[in-house]
Amino acid sequence: MSILIVGSLAFDDIETPFGSSLNTLGGSSTYIALSASYFTDKIQIVGVVGSDFEKVHFELLHSRQIDTRGVQKIEDGKTFRWSGRYHYDMNTRDTLDTRLNVFADFDPVVPAEYRNAEYICLGNIDPELQLKVLGQISKPKLVILDTMNFWIESKQEELKKTLQHVNIFILNDSEARLLSGDPNLVKSARIIREMGPKTLIIKKGEHGALLFNDNGIFAAPAFPLESIYDPTGAGDTFAGGFIGHLSRCETITDTEMRRAVLYGSAMASFCVEKFGTEKIAALDLLEIEDRYQSFRELSRIEE
Amino acid sequence: MSILIVGSLAFDDIETPFGSSLNTLGGSSTYIALSASYFTDKIQIVGVVGSDFEKVHFELLHSRQIDTRGVQKIEDGKTFRWSGRYHYDMNTRDTLDTRLNVFADFDPVVPAEYRNAEYICLGNIDPELQLKVLGQISKPKLVILDTMNFWIESKQEELKKTLQHVNIFILNDSEARLLSGDPNLVKSARIIREMGPKTLIIKKGEHGALLFNDNGIFAAPAFPLESIYDPTGAGDTFAGGFIGHLSRCETITDTEMRRAVLYGSAMASFCVEKFGTEKIAALDLLEIEDRYQSFRELSRIEE
Repeated sequence: MSILIVGSLAFDDIETPFGSSLNTLGGSSTYIALSASYFTDKIQIVGVVGSDFEKVHFELLHSRQIDTRGVQKIEDGKTFRWSGRYHYDMNTRDTLDTRLNVFADFDPVVPAEYRNAEYICLGNIDPELQLKVLGQISKPKLVILDTMNFWIESKQEELKKTLQHVNIFILNDSEARLLSGDPNLVKSARIIREMGPKTLIIKKGEHGALLFNDNGIFAAPAFPLESIYDPTGAGDTFAGGFIGHLSRCETITDTEMRRAVLYGSAMASFCVEKFGTEKIAALDLLEIEDRYQSFRELSRIEE
Repeated sequence: MSILIVGSLAFDDIETPFGSSLNTLGGSSTYIALSASYFTDKIQIVGVVGSDFEKVHFELLHSRQIDTRGVQKIEDGKTFRWSGRYHYDMNTRDTLDTRLNVFADFDPVVPAEYRNAEYICLGNIDPELQLKVLGQISKPKLVILDTMNFWIESKQEELKKTLQHVNIFILNDSEARLLSGDPNLVKSARIIREMGPKTLIIKKGEHGALLFNDNGIFAAPAFPLESIYDPTGAGDTFAGGFIGHLSRCETITDTEMRRAVLYGSAMASFCVEKFGTEKIAALDLLEIEDRYQSFRELSRIEE
């Protein structure tokens, strides 16, 4: 099944206690698409880049069968840039600089050949743009939305309007508390699910993720890794693995949803093991399946 | 099988954002014993109290078939007292006052009728006292030890000496980082297991617990509760449910160890739902089994 992804394509400057990486390919749709590419070969991106987004960057995406016909290239503009520094514990970071560049005037246009897409992943961008993309899809089967505190604070009404059209909403624990106004995650989940999305995933970083749906709650651990080099993009990579697995299911049951959370977690666990997209651009299916099985083992108890 | 527990018996003054509880029965061995009492009817406590520890307090323990012949009563002394205040997020607390009282001169004596105990739970007290208790047991089958940052900082060498005689070591994530000197929990676990205990449990509060043994890692979620009133004693209650389940197993396999972690987690999830020992003093087996099954469901994926 085809997955349509909208989000940023970016260049990041990243500093962690273990080193730094300058001018590295990033952006929410890059991570989502690379991660999802191991589950289907029909991935379409809608986004915008500047003249500094070179052939080599497109080639990286194409090497993973990612369709970039929906990526507008603005020849007299520059690609979105983000720079950040992670603290010693790797759970918190400071944004040092954000330059929207060509993203400031981004007006997403979904190419005609993308409009029948069934799986839609609205990566973390302005909720008005997310809704604008959604309006151009003829009949989505499943809509997933990711967001961040910036939009919850600056465009909450627009976000809530967009959420009414969303099936699965992904955000992290502090964002859930911010949006719901309640410190308790179980209460937060109930409040947020009333905004529209029947399924909610709350990511807790190194503590795993919680899935809330009509069947109850599923708790996935994070993979206990010895070496975490760079958490950038882990959330987007999670979303990519999650929607990737769902896109290959005939019907989306609670069990498949739980499996999808583990596939998302498995992909995210790879992401943090190297800088930027380095690791998730060069995986093979066997190691993904191995990591997934390790995740299963992590919380399995024999009957 | 009989379980011998050594630890504090105390009176606590507790303040949380939801209310306060004064002069409430507490202490590590109280929580451990009450929690374990649902799994076996042979529980023995070694400890010390003052004249303010009244008949009603002994009766509460006896009502759960807890043998208190090993509790010394110092008639001209006062029972250990602790008072603390929890912050809004319930994950952090300030100790307002600690009065060792009769605990200052505690010289644990294991009664002759306890010395054949097979399951030993060394609750959070001075590691030298923990070792002194252990030296009086003829042939323990399983020794579990709990500790806290205070002893890691003030008596690390004594703690390490005691750990050489311990099978299962329980501590929380910040204590594991403190003892190992490594911020990464997987590395911490390896360093700490080299100190003696083949099995290590790292508690992560609202994020569950990790079990490390020769079979690998088991990750247990915490129960997503809507209402948390008082986290006091949750760690001890975990230990009680954990050793309680193990004491009823013929052989201690990795699977039984994993189940024990979930039973411990289930008991801890009850503990925080009311102040002090109120909830764990009055449970029934059916609700414990129900909560255990809910824990199973929380991370179960159908094959």
